[in-house]
This record gives sequence, C-alpha cells and structure tokens, in this order.
Amino acid sequence: MPSYKAPLDDVQFLWNDVFRVDRYSNLPGFADASPDVVSAILTEAAKFCEQVLTPLNRTGDQEGCTRHPDGSVTAPTGFADAFRQMREGGWIGISAPEEFGGMGLPVTLTEVVNEFLCSANMAFAMYPGLTQGAIAALLAHGTPEQKALYLPKMVAGEWTGTMNLTEPHCGTDLGLLRAKAVKQADGSYKITGTKIFISAGEHDLADNIVHLVLARIEGAPQGTKGISLFVVPKVVPNADGSLGARNVVACGSLEEKMGIHGNSTCVMNYDGATGWLLGEENRGLHGMFTMMNEARLAVGMQGLALSEVAYQNAATYAKERLQGRALSGSKHKDKPADPIIVHPDVRRTLMTIKSFNEAARALVMWTALQSDLAHRSQDDKTRQAADDHMGLLTPVIKGVLTDTGFANTVMAQQLFGGHGYIAEHGMEQFVRDARITMLYEGANGIQALDLVGRKLPKDGGRALQAFFAEVQGLIKQHSGDDGMKPYTEPLGKALSHLQAATMWFMQNALAKPDNAGAGSHDFMHLFGLVALGTMWCRMAAAAREKLKAGANGSTERMNAKLVTGRFFMERMLPETGAHLSRIQSGSASMMELPDEAF
Amino acid sequence: MPSYKAPLDDVQFLWNDVFRVDRYSNLPGFADASPDVVSAILTEAAKFCEQVLTPLNRTGDQEGCTRHPDGSVTAPTGFADAFRQMREGGWIGISAPEEFGGMGLPVTLTEVVNEFLCSANMAFAMYPGLTQGAIAALLAHGTPEQKALYLPKMVAGEWTGTMNLTEPHCGTDLGLLRAKAVKQADGSYKITGTKIFISAGEHDLADNIVHLVLARIEGAPQGTKGISLFVVPKVVPNADGSLGARNVVACGSLEEKMGIHGNSTCVMNYDGATGWLLGEENRGLHGMFTMMNEARLAVGMQGLALSEVAYQNAATYAKERLQGRALSGSKHKDKPADPIIVHPDVRRTLMTIKSFNEAARALVMWTALQSDLAHRSQDDKTRQAADDHMGLLTPVIKGVLTDTGFANTVMAQQLFGGHGYIAEHGMEQFVRDARITMLYEGANGIQALDLVGRKLPKDGGRALQAFFAEVQGLIKQHSGDDGMKPYTEPLGKALSHLQAATMWFMQNALAKPDNAGAGSHDFMHLFGLVALGTMWCRMAAAAREKLKAGANGSTERMNAKLVTGRFFMERMLPETGAHLSRIQSGSASMMELPDEAF
Repeated sequence: MPSYKAPLDDVQFLWNDVFRVDRYSNLPGFADASPDVVSAILTEAAKFCEQVLTPLNRTGDQEGCTRHPDGSVTAPTGFADAFRQMREGGWIGISAPEEFGGMGLPVTLTEVVNEFLCSANMAFAMYPGLTQGAIAALLAHGTPEQKALYLPKMVAGEWTGTMNLTEPHCGTDLGLLRAKAVKQADGSYKITGTKIFISAGEHDLADNIVHLVLARIEGAPQGTKGISLFVVPKVVPNADGSLGARNVVACGSLEEKMGIHGNSTCVMNYDGATGWLLGEENRGLHGMFTMMNEARLAVGMQGLALSEVAYQNAATYAKERLQGRALSGSKHKDKPADPIIVHPDVRRTLMTIKSFNEAARALVMWTALQSDLAHRSQDDKTRQAADDHMGLLTPVIKGVLTDTGFANTVMAQQLFGGHGYIAEHGMEQFVRDARITMLYEGANGIQALDLVGRKLPKDGGRALQAFFAEVQGLIKQHSGDDGMKPYTEPLGKALSHLQAATMWFMQNALAKPDNAGAGSHDFMHLFGLVALGTMWCRMAAAAREKLKAGANGSTERMNAKLVTGRFFMERMLPETGAHLSRIQSGSASMMELPDEAF
Repeated sequence: MPSYKAPLDDVQFLWNDVFRVDRYSNLPGFADASPDVVSAILTEAAKFCEQVLTPLNRTGDQEGCTRHPDGSVTAPTGFADAFRQMREGGWIGISAPEEFGGMGLPVTLTEVVNEFLCSANMAFAMYPGLTQGAIAALLAHGTPEQKALYLPKMVAGEWTGTMNLTEPHCGTDLGLLRAKAVKQADGSYKITGTKIFISAGEHDLADNIVHLVLARIEGAPQGTKGISLFVVPKVVPNADGSLGARNVVACGSLEEKMGIHGNSTCVMNYDGATGWLLGEENRGLHGMFTMMNEARLAVGMQGLALSEVAYQNAATYAKERLQGRALSGSKHKDKPADPIIVHPDVRRTLMTIKSFNEAARALVMWTALQSDLAHRSQDDKTRQAADDHMGLLTPVIKGVLTDTGFANTVMAQQLFGGHGYIAEHGMEQFVRDARITMLYEGANGIQALDLVGRKLPKDGGRALQAFFAEVQGLIKQHSGDDGMKPYTEPLGKALSHLQAATMWFMQNALAKPDNAGAGSHDFMHLFGLVALGTMWCRMAAAAREKLKAGANGSTERMNAKLVTGRFFMERMLPETGAHLSRIQSGSASMMELPDEAF
C-alpha cells in the first residue's frame, strides 16, 4: 500500500526563503497569510491528506464509481465521508472571497494544498478542484444574484461544480459544438445536447451539482463566436437557496477509462434542461478562457503531485529492497544483499525525479504568486507583468509538468521491477492516473501550439522579452559568485538555446507556419527546462544564503538542495541542445509524405 | 475497436532488399525459406493475426483470466480456440528441428511471425512464446530422453512451457533464491518453493504445462553458483508420452496487474513436486543464460510490436478525426474541419513512431539473422562474430526497443486526446501492455548494466570494435554518394559520440565503477540510436538502389522510406549529444546525497 507525506519543509523553504511571500503583505489577503497561519493550514491539510485521503486512493481505484439504473452515481466507499471532512475543514474556499464564506487567502496557498490533495488522491481531489474552477467562473462572470445564490453553497462544499465543454465530435475544436440553448419567456434557456468526459458530473458527495455548460443559442453564428456559457444546476434552487425541482439533466453512462477510477467521468445528457446565461451571449469561450490559465496551472500541478507521491514510494522501496551488491563493493555486508539505492542507476532515477519535483514546485508557486498579483495588485504595471507571466508560463507548466510528471511516475514504477506492474504496490495506479493530465484541459500538443502560436507573438513578444530579461538578470546578479557557477553557467547556455530557437521561429515560421508547428513541442520543453533551471538558480541562491546565515537546523536539507540542483543542471539541461537542433530541422521531412503513406 | 494489419511489405523489403536473406541459402533450413515459402507463411500468419487474434485482444483484456477454487485457470473466452488454430498452423515450431516435428526454418522467420502475433494480441502470444523459450532450453540442455519425451508435444503445442525464476524476495538477484530440490532415490527431485510472476503458469489451452524451475539442491553452495534448473511437468508424463499423475504444483493465485490481462500471471506453489534435473547440477543459471539472448531479443521485439499496432491505429485516427484547420490554410474546405493529420505536431508524432518502428524491425531482423548464423553456420569465425553481435546488441534491443516502444504507445494514445484515455479505443491497453516489456526478462536498468559492465569489456572489447568497424565501413562505403549524405553524416556524428562515451568509460570507470553505472542508461540509448541510425543507412541505400532499378511498383514506398529515414536522422539523432554530456557528467552528483536525503 503506497504512502504519502506532504513536503511541508520544501514548501516552507519556497514560501519563506525563495519567494519570501511576506514581501507581498500589502496585497489583500496576504497579510492574513502570516507564516504561522500558513504553517497551521498546511499542517492540517497534510494530516487530512496523509491520514484520510491516502488510504482511499487505492480502494477508490479498485472499486471505482457506480452508476445506478436511475442514473444516480455513487463514488467509492469512503469518498462521501472524506468530502464531508474536506468541507468541514473549509479547504475548498481557502482563496474564495470572505463575503461568500471563503478565507480570502492567496491562490498560492490553495495551489499548495491542492498539490497535497492530488498526491494523496487525485481522483478525489478532482471533486473539490472542479468546484473551485466553477467558483472562479461564477466570480468572474456571474450576476450579483447568481453569485449570491450559488457561491456560498459551493464555497461551503454543499454543492459541487463541473465544466461541460466536450462533445463526442469536438474537444479541441469547440467551434464545432452542437449543444443548443433556446431562450424562454422568463429569461432562462432550455439546454439540449450531449457532453462527454464530464468529471464529477454525477455523484453522491453533495446535495447539488452546478454544471457550467457551453451551448449555442438558437440563431447564433457558426464557429467559436456563437458559443455561450450557461449555469445548469442538477436541482434548480429556489431563490432562498433551498432545493427545488430536479432539472432535466442526467448521467447517461460512466466512461470506462485508464485511471482516475475514483472520479465519476460522465456522459451527460441535457434534454431541455433549464439553464441561465453566465456572462454575455456568444462570449462563452471568452468566459472559459478567463479561467483557463488557473485551470491549466492546476493540471500542471497535478503532474507534479503524482510525480511527488510516486517518487516518495520509489525512494522508500529503494532503501528497503535488498538485491545485488554495490558496484564499488558491498555496502551492507551484514545483510544478504545491499538495498538497491546503492546502485548509481537507481539514484539517477531518483535524482531525476527529485530534481524535477523541487523545481516544478517552485515554478508552480512562482506562477501562482503571479496569479495573485494579477488579481490583487493595485499597481497596473505589476498586474500587467504578472498577467504576462501567467499567460506565457501557463502552457509551459501544463505541458511540461504533465509530460514529465507522467514520465516520472513511469520511472518510479520501474524501480520496483516486476512488482511495479502489480496493482498491490500502487505504482501502476500513479502511472494510469497521471496519464490523464497530458490529455485534459487541452492536450499537450495544444499547449505547445498555444505557446508558440499565441503567447510568443502576443503584444510584440512583450511577455517573452520580460522572461528573458528576468533570467538574464538572475544570471547577472550571481555572476560574481563562483559558488553559483554550476547553476548559472548551464542556465546561461540553455537560455541561449531558447533565444536561438525563438530567433529561428521569427526567421522561418512567419512565412511558413508549419515550421512553428513542427518545433512547438520541442520549444515548449526547451522553455520548460529554462524555467525549471531558473528555479534551481533561485533555490540554490536561497540555500547558499541560508547556509551562510547558519541554516537554523536545516544545513543538511540546504546541502541536499545544492547537490540536487547540480544534478539537474548536469543531467537535464543538456537536452536543450537537442531540442534546438530538432526545431532548426524544420517541418520539411514531416510534411513531405502524402497522407496515405501513414 | 483497434485494428491491425501485418506490415508484410516492410518485412519483404527487409528480407529481400536490405538483408538479402537468400545469400544465406547455404545454411541449414535457409534453402527451404525461399521467397515463395516465406511469403506464403507470412501471409497466412498475417491472416491469423488480423482476423483471429486482433478481435480477441480487447475482450481478453476486459475479461482477463479466471482462477477457480480448485486452482485451475481459464484463459479469456476465445483464447483456447485461437490456440488450437495456432497449433494447427504449426506456428510454434517454425524454427524447431524437423526431428521433433518443427519446420526447421530460420529463427529470423519466427521472429517476424512473433512480431505479428504480439501486435495482434500480446497477452495471447505469450503462451506460445514461453513455450518456444522452454523448447529452446530443452534443446540446449535436455538429455536425449528428455527431448524425445517433451519436445514433440511442445512443438506441436499440445503442451506449453513456462520459466520459473522469480521469488518474492528475489528477481534481479537470483543468488538469493530459496526454492529447494531434494534428490530422490530414482534420480528425480522433490521441488519445494514459491515462484511469482509466472506467465502462462496455469491455463486451459493445453493438456500439460512443462515448468522449467530454478531451485537449489540440498547442500548446494550459496549464491548463484548453487542454482540448478529442473523440468517439472504439471502432469507427469508416462514414458510413452501419455499423461500420468497430477504433479504437486499449483497456481496459488493470479497476480492483479496493470496489463496483459489475457495472460495468466501466476503465483506457483511447489510442494514437493517431482522434477528432473535439466543440464548440470548447480549450472542452472548458465542454462538460463544460454537462452537469455533469444528471450531478450523477443521482448525487445514486443516493444516494437506494440509500437507498431499503436502507430497504425493512431495514423488511422489522425486521418479520420476532423478538428481544427491546417496552420497553412484549410486543406478540406468541404468538411467542417480538417483531419488532424494536417497538423505538423500530429505528423511529428506519427513520423517519430514510424521512423522508429521501421528501423527497429530492421534491427531485430539483423540480429535474429546473427542468431541463426551463430547456431547454424559451419564457419567458426562467422559463428563467433555472430555470437559477438548477439551478445552486444541484445541488451540494447531489449532496453531501447521496450523503452521507446512504450513511449511510442503513449505518444500514439496522445493523438486521440481524451478519447485515448477511454478503454473503448484500445489505445490505453497498448500502453498498459507495453509497460511490462520494460520490466520483465531483466528490467531495463539491468540491460544497461549488462551492456556497460559485461558486454563492452568482454574479450577485450572485441564485439564493440567489430560493431564500430561495421558502422564505419557502412559510412565509408557510401561516402562518394551525395544522396546518402543525409543519412551517413548524422550517423557519423552519432558514432563519434558513442566512441567518445566509450573512451570516457575507459578513462573514468575502471577506477570508479560508479561512473559506468551512472552513465549506463544513457550509453544504452546512445548505442540504440547509433544502431537504429545504421539500419536507416542500410535501408536508405537499399531503397535508392531499388529506385534506380525501377522499383517495380514500389516507388512510392521507397520514396517514403527515404523521407522517413531523413526524419529519423534529423529528429532522433540529435539526442546522442545530450546522452554524451550526461555520461561525461559522471556519478558525483547522484552519489553524493546520504540515503536519508531521499
């Protein structure tokens, strides 16, 4: 049975030493997030994740969800009770406005808690996670009445939320969607259509489910410009928030899928269900896109979360499993064999995952902070810069953290040998669960295209230039420090590859967009390596500073940080040259074959 | 429901144009393998795989195997009937000696048929596959009486075989194994112990199951030097081959695993079961190792097989799924959207898999041919060179073809977006099934260590030097041909990286073996890229020759070969530089942390 321990020390290091979040105490909600409060919340969250959610992860996978003949769905045993505890802890509304019952604390804190939740039990964490997404949409686009009616219940976790976008024939290309909405005399709409892949679409954890549904109003233009967003509650609430009549929306079936079996992934049928417009007519995609950055950041974080829990279990196994002897001579002569952690290739695997996880956690926190700044700063320039950062880094985080997070779960599983293939150890579940993160919330190929096709050229490349300047500034800041060279030099080289790739796109992709598409995947990963390398520079600098200051009992952890960062620079950053070569090879050989040659 | 079409054209190109197998007609069995015979056998095998095995793949995964209270096991519906057809087709004994009822044809041909079988239904193909392995062990180590008793039944598929190595506490480190054998007065042994992960350990496809079991004879030395190999039949045969008494060996339970659900993976309990020594006392590991190369080659081929079938289904989907428009402008204005194959990133994915599959198939065939030469040539030097090649390339093929094959199934699944996660499309099954190939028959980390620690230094590096000379010779042979430059130049660069890595090991790993272990994974993959690149050079040369000669209706296929090879050189080979950098970074940063820092 796999175990999990929330990485509290690492989070505190990032919060207090690397990003020094106390600098932002002038922002709304940040003053309340004092180190003590943060520590208390995280400690409680860790306890809940470790003790309540972790044991339900494998049982939830085995049991899965059950759809009953009447269309109702039961989540796995224990989920409803865990959700009740989650609700009572107030975890859903950590960052929700206080007027709707939330704590108003930074999104950055929610992101950390969500990492813990997803490491412990991703299938479970999706129920509150989707509710948070729906809350964000209602906050951004709801009328005061809609907010008053729905938000208090959702923030309290009495009602949960969903997102209904995909239809059988359209996922990426939402312009093709067919669900229709017919306006009624009372201002409501009748929604009709079939949606698929609806996570948490039906379950027994909450009294009501608030579906946010994309549909096309009768007579609306074709394509993406004719799509509107609707609130369609499972049970129509009365004005006082009490539950009224059951709406005409039902779970038609549960999808049979590779993993996240504890989450109910539903086909949802709308047969003239009553809904209300959320935001403006025909601006539904716009409504969705305003939440896209946060949602994609959250999915990138899921990649990290699964990489983390898979790593922890692999590390434990490597220290316990006795097999063979160290190449350099037996390390534990008293035992029948050495633990496999003596082997360089086992350590290579662990260090690869560890050095990614720590940098990825930093990258998520850095970007979540920008999200807070973008929403809460009073300064226009700060808000703009933060928004630029979010827009640019979001596809990178979503694509790279899920691609790499998945690959890491596979590597962690590998350390178990044949035992990794057996369900009992739980490693194969991490692989199956992690796999979805590369697919949903925009498949990673779409993230790469979004980065290269939309985010790079946006505002004349303003966001990218700011990012380059920030990385260059960091390198320059530490240029006089020999101890920082193992970090700054490889980062400088990686940055030059990223800049060369950008230049190549400017020279070759404007006239021939296929050259951008052909290099988009490599560019995203090249960008990711530079971003993660930047995090290692910042962490190494913070660790060195802490060591100089006496380290306060964390000397060993800080030394480990420096070694782990060096490993990342030596072992991960060489990949940037290969990415650049591939980008520069262009699109010719991949576009040349006729379709029938495939 | 996924489909499969055996790549007959590609095999014929390799057989007739690239490797020109007719050159070997002086070897036993090769004269019988005329182009007509080969074509007839492959066409029949293709039909069986496409029409009988493919439809059973997903149903077998869903239904899995069933263990009954009496310990008997039923394979999924349809498997027993398909196995009967397989038996009647004589597929198991294609390469088995004619005196035992086989056809005596080259192992190379068996390898091709096995690729088709594994693409169509890997869980099924393991039943005959393990039988072939057991046949090889009996051929190599059995007494004439043992051969006469067991082989005709096994070649005919009336009885199947298994390999029993792993125990709960030992997989990689067989020196720790505990199963014991006690000699009886009649020369037989009583075998007692528990074996796990026993593929095809119990099932209803055959009348008897011949278990080959590693155990320690009472009083034998500790460690690997005290292990013997035994034949332990499920039902003890009478001298005339009729079935006698049920032996004391039983399936204790079926492992619950990630994939290959159609194959019964058993915990096998031996409670004083009657067995007979196979080969010499205490030389059981030696007995296993003589078959290891063939078995590992076969597993490498499984990686290719799953990559191939996943590719085929992804290519079909990419041509059918309408979503979005081409970057360079709509390609199919008459349709609501373009098929996704217009997108460079989709083609990048397909070309990545395709260019690997075709080279991997060549590499397997090249190496299978060496296996035939090593066993059938009359010339000592030819046999030695072939054996050197087998020994050197086997860990590369096992490790690289399964690592990459698995990664390719993940990439193919990715093209389906969210649909790839849904069981119905079958793509997630390919991923789950492919995952085992990286783990069994020696986890890939062990393959890398075998390559670096054993195969490189063996006989003063003779095999490696011969490989270098062969690749250099190939490059030189085509050095005057400008049309070959897109293939030879990148290969030359990749080879220089491989040579530099080898040199680095010589200078840094002798005194400090951890430096070899630290670079072993990268070295294996670097080697694999050079080997696959070499195959592309040979295929490109053959394709160009064929085009010059008029191509005989295969012009388009030969042109596609040249483009696909160019893609491989441009997109895959740049990775060799990154591998070299990582190798040269050595073991310091990965060995530095104390165990408790993980």
